[in-house]
Amino acid sequence: MASVLDLSLSEIAGRFADGRLRARALTEEAQSRHDPALNAYKTWAPEFALRQADAADAAFAAGVRLGALQGIPVSVKDIYGVEELPIFAGSPRELPARWRREGPIVRQLRRQIAVVTGKAHTVEFAFGGLGINAHWSAPWNPQDRKVHRSPGGSSSGAGVTLGEGTALLALGTDTAGSVRIPASMTGNAGIKTTKGRWSTDGVVPLSPTFDTTGLLARGAADLAFAFQQFDDASVPQLGDLAGVRLGRAEAFFWEATSPGVSERVDEALLLAEADGARVADAALPSASEVFENYRKGGIVAPELYSFLSAELPDWLETLDPRVRQRMDAGKALPAWEYLARKERYAVLGADAALSLAGIDALVCPTVPITPPPVADVASDDAYTKANMLAMRNTCPASFLGLCAVTLPVGRDAAGMPVGLQLIGAPGSEARLLAIAVQLERLVAKKGNWRYRPA
Amino acid sequence: MASVLDLSLSEIAGRFADGRLRARALTEEAQSRHDPALNAYKTWAPEFALRQADAADAAFAAGVRLGALQGIPVSVKDIYGVEELPIFAGSPRELPARWRREGPIVRQLRRQIAVVTGKAHTVEFAFGGLGINAHWSAPWNPQDRKVHRSPGGSSSGAGVTLGEGTALLALGTDTAGSVRIPASMTGNAGIKTTKGRWSTDGVVPLSPTFDTTGLLARGAADLAFAFQQFDDASVPQLGDLAGVRLGRAEAFFWEATSPGVSERVDEALLLAEADGARVADAALPSASEVFENYRKGGIVAPELYSFLSAELPDWLETLDPRVRQRMDAGKALPAWEYLARKERYAVLGADAALSLAGIDALVCPTVPITPPPVADVASDDAYTKANMLAMRNTCPASFLGLCAVTLPVGRDAAGMPVGLQLIGAPGSEARLLAIAVQLERLVAKKGNWRYRPA
Repeated sequence: MASVLDLSLSEIAGRFADGRLRARALTEEAQSRHDPALNAYKTWAPEFALRQADAADAAFAAGVRLGALQGIPVSVKDIYGVEELPIFAGSPRELPARWRREGPIVRQLRRQIAVVTGKAHTVEFAFGGLGINAHWSAPWNPQDRKVHRSPGGSSSGAGVTLGEGTALLALGTDTAGSVRIPASMTGNAGIKTTKGRWSTDGVVPLSPTFDTTGLLARGAADLAFAFQQFDDASVPQLGDLAGVRLGRAEAFFWEATSPGVSERVDEALLLAEADGARVADAALPSASEVFENYRKGGIVAPELYSFLSAELPDWLETLDPRVRQRMDAGKALPAWEYLARKERYAVLGADAALSLAGIDALVCPTVPITPPPVADVASDDAYTKANMLAMRNTCPASFLGLCAVTLPVGRDAAGMPVGLQLIGAPGSEARLLAIAVQLERLVAKKGNWRYRPA
Repeated sequence: MASVLDLSLSEIAGRFADGRLRARALTEEAQSRHDPALNAYKTWAPEFALRQADAADAAFAAGVRLGALQGIPVSVKDIYGVEELPIFAGSPRELPARWRREGPIVRQLRRQIAVVTGKAHTVEFAFGGLGINAHWSAPWNPQDRKVHRSPGGSSSGAGVTLGEGTALLALGTDTAGSVRIPASMTGNAGIKTTKGRWSTDGVVPLSPTFDTTGLLARGAADLAFAFQQFDDASVPQLGDLAGVRLGRAEAFFWEATSPGVSERVDEALLLAEADGARVADAALPSASEVFENYRKGGIVAPELYSFLSAELPDWLETLDPRVRQRMDAGKALPAWEYLARKERYAVLGADAALSLAGIDALVCPTVPITPPPVADVASDDAYTKANMLAMRNTCPASFLGLCAVTLPVGRDAAGMPVGLQLIGAPGSEARLLAIAVQLERLVAKKGNWRYRPA
């Protein structure tokens, strides 16, 4: 064992429990991995983290167990309020102090004395899938140390904190893919919860209609472990995939994939089938309509503009041009059409829930494309094209009211991680996670993806 | 006793219970009052009503009591679905059959075998406060048999059914005053419930944000009696108004009142004070902002246009010019501004609830103006001016998330009824009704308003 950082969350919790490991030691080991060149954090808070680790250790020493994340280093996307830390939400200057207020998800972390390592970078106001930020630069995708590639977004620092090893869990938010895209691009697992399941209170809003809070972890087992610390549901253990019904998503989700992407996902499906899963073609017919609608502006852009005009008007002047461009496109959308789109999403969402009723999960690549080098998306056209492709497979679950999990299943032809997305009916998070955990075992056994960080 | 129609709902229910009165007899007596010249009903359904009366009698005979409205003639605004009756929603032709589906409020009537007398006229898609309808003409306000005066709207037929005596209770809907204005103008009582308290399912929507279902009755005691058949709360009996705190609303609510209107309301306040109520000046500072916003278009117009475009596009072509004019004004409202207005309403509503925390009700005239002769509001300018004045005092409670009750307290200088509005904190319906019932007694004792219909 090279490092305690190689242990799973469950193993670490076990070592904390029997006194073999102290939170301070784990936090110091994690902090030793901090690589400022990767630019994962807007606010890196090592002293603050050590104080929390000491508090966790003091509680352990007194026999007080406040939750399974006690003493675990967790990075927080800089769109959540954390009382002691400044919040920028990806903007060039600190937001007013009221945005530091902690909502239920952060409170859940703090109550069990998880160790908040700092505030991880985000696309400005979380509006973008590639992790680009004109003010603070894009974090470096740790899966390619030679070329500066997209870390995914909008939770752009989240996967990087896991990849470098400073955090073993990351809080993200997902409006159209902002947890799943960075998780997939950096070789981590992630969950986008059903809208309304977890509170978004204490989070700077992008779209009150579609914003969700979620998690990134180094793999599906860690993700399932952490999920249960925020949720009432428990994730069942599956011995194999017998009885699990997987739908291979329709052609729409497989178009324009980078070499190796579809192959890795299909290999994982074969492993699932050999493990007892029933795999058949399945359709989510509304996905293409929902995506086309999103390309034309959807309803997120006017929601963001409305929020900024009312709450942070001074921040409009300094917006990242990439964010401004998309937001401005939504300014002219008439209210009646906004309402019609929302109504249409609701109708399509009800249909989608019915489509998924006969299967446990729809399967597709999480992100069709290999994480692009940041230099390749410098032009408006290239950015728009890559950004839309990055979100193509994640946005349907968001706009149709579904939930989804991504887990790494191998590497594409460029050597970058490939994520497999499981899309499930509303509220089916625990079932998706159970399947993901078993799939992860199969993929690891096959040698297609090494779960544990190096 | 001239007629069983002079009895209160409670007295009628008592006579049904002990067999002294049959529902068929009551219904026939009510039907004998039908005056087609008053034009209260879009669909007058005497045979249907008698079948229901017979069913109610059969149940009474079998000892089956399904609710206190069993056997009571009730008119239903033609914006609610009633399975057996066509629905026009004030438009020139019948809506598709799916709009006949009954929602919880109508089901509540039907389950206790109330006698649905027919579908009462409404302003087209409920968008207007004066009761004008280019397709079906305005019902005649029965309080002036010589001049064709506004019956109020949008529940334009509701008060007329009570006034002529064909119904002893009327279902209305209220988005900005559509229960309270016709109740006030026709000398009846009415309640606008807190948004969300009663379902609007099974009602053709005008504004999903502000639509509420409500009731009109011949007086406050009947209204309180009926309210309890749709609600879990019970209305307490007050022996007097000791301990009741009333706020006389600020100047905004008393401006431009027709002669005699303010006087009647203030007389009622004096009676309340003499009965033990504490009366002091009180403010609802956001009322004027909310009204100004509504004058500029508010958010109702785009909500209506969005609904019609999606669900009833063919109905757009034939819209009443008065409705079209107001709706078209909202077409250009940008989505971001729509959202900003909604957010602003929510903030102001929270403030308003706080303003009302120290009192039981804010008191003002329900409608500042005497019901105008229909001929006087034929021009665009005159219509717009009178329509906005008619809604000025009712729309604040709607847009601020409050509830309100109106009851008649006398006649203005033109001899038309004057309504007193009690505006209460969200959810305070039962308290408002209790106060209204006692106020009604005081006003009747003074001789300012004769509660029982002629």
